[in-house]
Amino acid sequence: MRIAVAGLGLIGGSLLRALDAAGHEVVGFDADPATRDAARAAGFPVAESLAEAASGSELTALGVPMPVLPQLITELAGYDGLVTDVTSVKGPVRDLVRAHGVGRFVGGHPMAGKETSGFAASEKDLFDGCAWVLCLEPGETDLGDWLTLARLFTGMGARVVPATADEHDAAVSKISHVPHLFASVLAAQISDDPLAGALGAGSFRDGTRVAATRPELTAAMCGGNRRSVQRELHRLIGLLEEMSGALDADDPGTALVPHLRLGAQARQAWPATPGEPATIPAAVPALLELGRSGGWVTSVGDGEVVALRPESGR
Amino acid sequence: MRIAVAGLGLIGGSLLRALDAAGHEVVGFDADPATRDAARAAGFPVAESLAEAASGSELTALGVPMPVLPQLITELAGYDGLVTDVTSVKGPVRDLVRAHGVGRFVGGHPMAGKETSGFAASEKDLFDGCAWVLCLEPGETDLGDWLTLARLFTGMGARVVPATADEHDAAVSKISHVPHLFASVLAAQISDDPLAGALGAGSFRDGTRVAATRPELTAAMCGGNRRSVQRELHRLIGLLEEMSGALDADDPGTALVPHLRLGAQARQAWPATPGEPATIPAAVPALLELGRSGGWVTSVGDGEVVALRPESGR
Repeated sequence: MRIAVAGLGLIGGSLLRALDAAGHEVVGFDADPATRDAARAAGFPVAESLAEAASGSELTALGVPMPVLPQLITELAGYDGLVTDVTSVKGPVRDLVRAHGVGRFVGGHPMAGKETSGFAASEKDLFDGCAWVLCLEPGETDLGDWLTLARLFTGMGARVVPATADEHDAAVSKISHVPHLFASVLAAQISDDPLAGALGAGSFRDGTRVAATRPELTAAMCGGNRRSVQRELHRLIGLLEEMSGALDADDPGTALVPHLRLGAQARQAWPATPGEPATIPAAVPALLELGRSGGWVTSVGDGEVVALRPESGR
Repeated sequence: MRIAVAGLGLIGGSLLRALDAAGHEVVGFDADPATRDAARAAGFPVAESLAEAASGSELTALGVPMPVLPQLITELAGYDGLVTDVTSVKGPVRDLVRAHGVGRFVGGHPMAGKETSGFAASEKDLFDGCAWVLCLEPGETDLGDWLTLARLFTGMGARVVPATADEHDAAVSKISHVPHLFASVLAAQISDDPLAGALGAGSFRDGTRVAATRPELTAAMCGGNRRSVQRELHRLIGLLEEMSGALDADDPGTALVPHLRLGAQARQAWPATPGEPATIPAAVPALLELGRSGGWVTSVGDGEVVALRPESGR
C-alpha cells in the first residue's frame, strides 16, 4: 500500500526508510524545505504539502513532535485514509483526535531513539526489535485498522505491544519520564562539586546519561504526561524516604537490605526472556491482556496473531 | 619494594596483578584457601597468613570489604610498614585506624569495579585511567607515606585524587551511593507492571543498571556512609518535589525547563576535559586544593607532583 510519512526527523525519516526497505510505496513530507531536499537526495519521493502526501495514500504516519500534532490533525480533516502518530504520550493524542473527529486513527509509539536527531540521523533499522505500542481503546479503535498497522510494523521487525492510551502513559512515566527526572537531579549534584565529578565512574555515567537530553524535550515529554509522572514521582519519593529511615537503624547495612531486594530482583530479571510463540485470537480483550502481561505481537494472520510473552509472565 | 596484598577478590587480585606488572615484588594472602590456590596457580607467591605476608613487606594493602577490615587492622598491630585499604567509605576507616593506633596508614579508594567479582574476575589493567582517592588528613597523614602510595598508583596508570575522608564520603554519596538507591526504586517499578517492563528501553536500561547489584553490597556501602547519603537524598528529594510542583503549572512543558538546565549542563560537561599538565608543590594544602578543583596527580617527582585539572575548572 502507499504510505505517507509527514515529519522526516529521526523517527519519521527512519520510518520512511524502513517502510521503503519493507517494499512499500512511500511518500514523504516535511515542513522544512532543507529536510525535503535531504530526503529527495536520499532517493525518496517527497511531496510539497501534507495534503499532497496524504492524497492517494492509504495510511498517513505523522512523525512530528506533540506541539505540532494539532495543526496536522486539523489539516487532515476530510482525509479518509488511516492515520497514526509516533509521539511519546498517548492520552493527550487520543483526546485531540476525539476533539477533532479524525475518521480513522490508531495512536502509536515506537520505543526507539538515539542521542542524535534529524533526517541525517535516520536509519532503516532503527525499529528492528524495538517495542512499538499501538493504542487499542475498547469500543473506539477499529480492530481492522489496528491489525493493519500491527502487520505493517511487525513486518519491519518491531515488537507490537497492544495497550490503551492510559496504560501506555502510566508505563512510560515509569520507564522513561521519571528516569529522566532522576537522571537530571543526579547529574546536577556535580555542578558545584568538581571533586565528585572527578570521582564519577560507571554508576554515575549510566545513571545520568539521559540528563544530557535537551531540557525542552524532557520537559515537553513529562509535561504531556504530568499526572502519571507526578503519581509515580511521589510513590518513589516515599520509597526513598523509607530507605533514608532504614539508614537510621542501629545496623543500617542490614536494615537497608529489604528495601533493595525488589529492585535487584526486577532488574536481574529484565529484559524478560520470551517463551515459545503462541497464537491468540485477534480480538481486543486477548490483545490487551497480552500487553498487560508484558507480551507483544510478532506477526498478524487471519483472525489471529502470533504472540510472545515473558517465560515467567503471569 | 615488596608489597603484600591481603584479600584477593576483584580489587585485591587486580592490585596484585597490576603491581606485579609494574615490576614490584608482591606477595598475596586470602583467608579462603581456594582463592590462595587460584592465585598460586596464576603464578603469584602467596602466604599462609596475613602476618607472613606483611612480614618483610614495606607496604601492606588490604583488599577486603569493610566488615572484615577491623580484624585485619587488629592483626597488624606492631607492624611497622605502611598500610592502605581500598574500601568505598573512608570516614569509618579513618576512625577505626585512630582507635587501633595503626602506625602508618593512608586510606585509599580506587573508583573501579565491574559486575563480576572474585580473583577469577581480577585483571591487571583494572585501574588503568581510574580515579584512586588517597586520603590526606591535615596534621595526621604523613606526607611522605602519601607520596609513596601516589607514586605507586600513578605508576600503574591510576589518576590519584587527594581528598580528606569526609570530602571523599560526601563526593561518593553523590556519584555512587545515592545513584544506587535511585536505580533500585526505578527498577522496582516494573516488578508488578510487566507492560512497563516490556516497554523499557535505553533510559530504563542505563538508569537501573546498578540496581542489579547484590542488595547486601549496596546496603553495606550506603550504611557505612549514612549521614552523607541521607543528606544528599533529602536534598534531591526536595528538587524532585520542586519538579513535581512545576508540572502543576498552566504550561508544565515550559515550567519544568529551568529545573532541568543545571543537570543537562553538568552532564554535557562531564567528564571534564583536562587542561595542560602542571607542576604543583607536594604539600598538603596544594594537594587538597587540587582534589577540590576536580584535578588529580599523574606522577610524583622530588618535592613536587605533576597534576591535571579540568580545563574550565575553578
